[in-house]
Amino acid sequence: MNYKTENIKTITVSKALKLDCGRTVKDFPLAYETYGKLSDTKDNAILVFHALTGDQFVSGINPVTKKEGWWVTAVGPGKAIDTNKYFVICANVIGGCMGSWGPKEIDKKTKEPYGLNFPVITIKDMVKAQESLLDHLGIEKLLCATGGSMGGMQLLQFCTTFPKKTFSAIPIACSSSHSAQNIALNELARQAIMADPIWDNGKYFLKNTQPKNGLAVARMVGHISYLSEQGMQEKFGRKLQEKADYEFSFNADFQVESYLRHQGSSFVERFDANSILYITRAMDYFDLSKQFKDGLAEAFKNQTTKYLVISFSSDWLYTTKENKDIVIALNASGADVSYSEIETDKGHDSFLLNESEFLKTLKAFIDSMYEKFKK
Amino acid sequence: MNYKTENIKTITVSKALKLDCGRTVKDFPLAYETYGKLSDTKDNAILVFHALTGDQFVSGINPVTKKEGWWVTAVGPGKAIDTNKYFVICANVIGGCMGSWGPKEIDKKTKEPYGLNFPVITIKDMVKAQESLLDHLGIEKLLCATGGSMGGMQLLQFCTTFPKKTFSAIPIACSSSHSAQNIALNELARQAIMADPIWDNGKYFLKNTQPKNGLAVARMVGHISYLSEQGMQEKFGRKLQEKADYEFSFNADFQVESYLRHQGSSFVERFDANSILYITRAMDYFDLSKQFKDGLAEAFKNQTTKYLVISFSSDWLYTTKENKDIVIALNASGADVSYSEIETDKGHDSFLLNESEFLKTLKAFIDSMYEKFKK
Repeated sequence: MNYKTENIKTITVSKALKLDCGRTVKDFPLAYETYGKLSDTKDNAILVFHALTGDQFVSGINPVTKKEGWWVTAVGPGKAIDTNKYFVICANVIGGCMGSWGPKEIDKKTKEPYGLNFPVITIKDMVKAQESLLDHLGIEKLLCATGGSMGGMQLLQFCTTFPKKTFSAIPIACSSSHSAQNIALNELARQAIMADPIWDNGKYFLKNTQPKNGLAVARMVGHISYLSEQGMQEKFGRKLQEKADYEFSFNADFQVESYLRHQGSSFVERFDANSILYITRAMDYFDLSKQFKDGLAEAFKNQTTKYLVISFSSDWLYTTKENKDIVIALNASGADVSYSEIETDKGHDSFLLNESEFLKTLKAFIDSMYEKFKK
Repeated sequence: MNYKTENIKTITVSKALKLDCGRTVKDFPLAYETYGKLSDTKDNAILVFHALTGDQFVSGINPVTKKEGWWVTAVGPGKAIDTNKYFVICANVIGGCMGSWGPKEIDKKTKEPYGLNFPVITIKDMVKAQESLLDHLGIEKLLCATGGSMGGMQLLQFCTTFPKKTFSAIPIACSSSHSAQNIALNELARQAIMADPIWDNGKYFLKNTQPKNGLAVARMVGHISYLSEQGMQEKFGRKLQEKADYEFSFNADFQVESYLRHQGSSFVERFDANSILYITRAMDYFDLSKQFKDGLAEAFKNQTTKYLVISFSSDWLYTTKENKDIVIALNASGADVSYSEIETDKGHDSFLLNESEFLKTLKAFIDSMYEKFKK
């Protein structure tokens, strides 16, 4: 993984940030990207939070990987989140590896990458770091904030930690508390990385290498969990990979095997193994109710933000039930909340795909919020 | 993994077996165990097929691992499959590692373990090898044959390959054709093993070692898939492992992490990594309909065996839908079939647990079959 980072926009967060683990940090980099133009009245800003393996390059072509931005289906000129109309902001999370402060950044003390000397961070730490970006951009109140998966978890944290910072919020396919199954899947990914001797207790960077095998297996875990059983059956079934019959070997006979191997091996080119450890840990530690004595009801108390919660029927990673629990808690707190379950067999991945009902729902809500918020 | 194998019963299969891959083999070992006593009229024999990581030690104490047999909940004196009344037989599958012909056995040609020189086998190969055991025991027709998971797949194969060999059959939590998701999970397990440099293209036995890290990760994949989301949430939730709060480290903070690590590390003591490769491959290749020109309808044509298909409501590995598809195909072929879906949140694991509705169903069916079959 050798990024050319000259095109990455970065701020230095100079405000001291007290991390949940107890350490205080300051003067660390936060990389970000923006799309569209901020209006003179600053009433059209939308903050997007990215998921586990995402980054700040939401739309257009990612200048580092040269591939399309991860949410190009939803964000861009004329898209559901229309960058001709709205100013879209996304920051790379701390703990990440696309220019923000993370385990592959240089520790000023040792002059080497942090590796496992990087502190274990939380979703709250990520969100607090991103508040500084809004200050930097001079945005007091966002029109909307949104995110799917871990992005949704950041959003829920953002809305409770900074209750006045956004007019509206769209948590997508997420949870207010990471489930046992999701902790288990993350642990599986971490163990796959840590089982690779190249990982070497996080010090692989000393040899300018990556635990590629372990990281590829970790990525395969993700890809299986992002699809639904039915979706996988429809997409791959038992189709063979360019062969007439079984090969009676351990090569990739089935298309689904070939797909997973490809996803695994291409991922290691663009992502840092230690970042997976840190970000999955932050997800596992996420439990909004634990932060408040009276749980979720207290977390969402006095919210003036207008919510739309979206889930996908075949998502087994962040189930409809988990998303509905957010709606129930928001309702119990008297918040303004609506809810949409999108019927699809595409599983958790749906929020990244061209799912027209989802994109229409997204667009309609944001446009109506703008009508209310614009100055 | 160093077994003391002196107590293992074994036959040598002398009949030539033409494997699906094209190779023909003979004079190979097949390890087995029996429980209870075969009646003089030989009308009380029940054949049990084991699952991926099972073996022939169904009940009592496994003489090798010194732990309880894998189906002690269902098989034993006074149990649902009552060994005071029935004669229970179980063989270790070929490809396995509990005494049957498998990759850790010595290749007479090279005087070394086979490793990857072992042929890629199929469920049909496993079942054909086991027919020789019935010949050896002098059993022409079984009262019943049963098995869960891969055991159920072997059973379906057995009933179609040897349609006159069993009076009744109970396929449990299985499928007539391995799904894309299940192929994907097996591929994940294989890649975890093959990613471990100790695996060394299957030649780890030369150094008298095992790819422990990779094999442990592979086992964790299994354990996640055997439980249901709800079951995991109830069993583990976000409970911490003997600590008051997060440790802000990569140690096992959560009980579910500790559980998975334990399952992984204890598994490497009792199972051979190459066996996992071979057995998962056999499962992936299983597609009963592919063996018959007219698919499943032809597979089950002229069946006189009486079937009871059992599935578990929260099993996402071998879903109720997949089990119902077997029932539909049997019905379409005019077979005698009944079906029971057990309501439980315990997932695929249910067939190994003390699930009283399941065990009652099993007992009632077998006892009623015995009333019809006994001489």
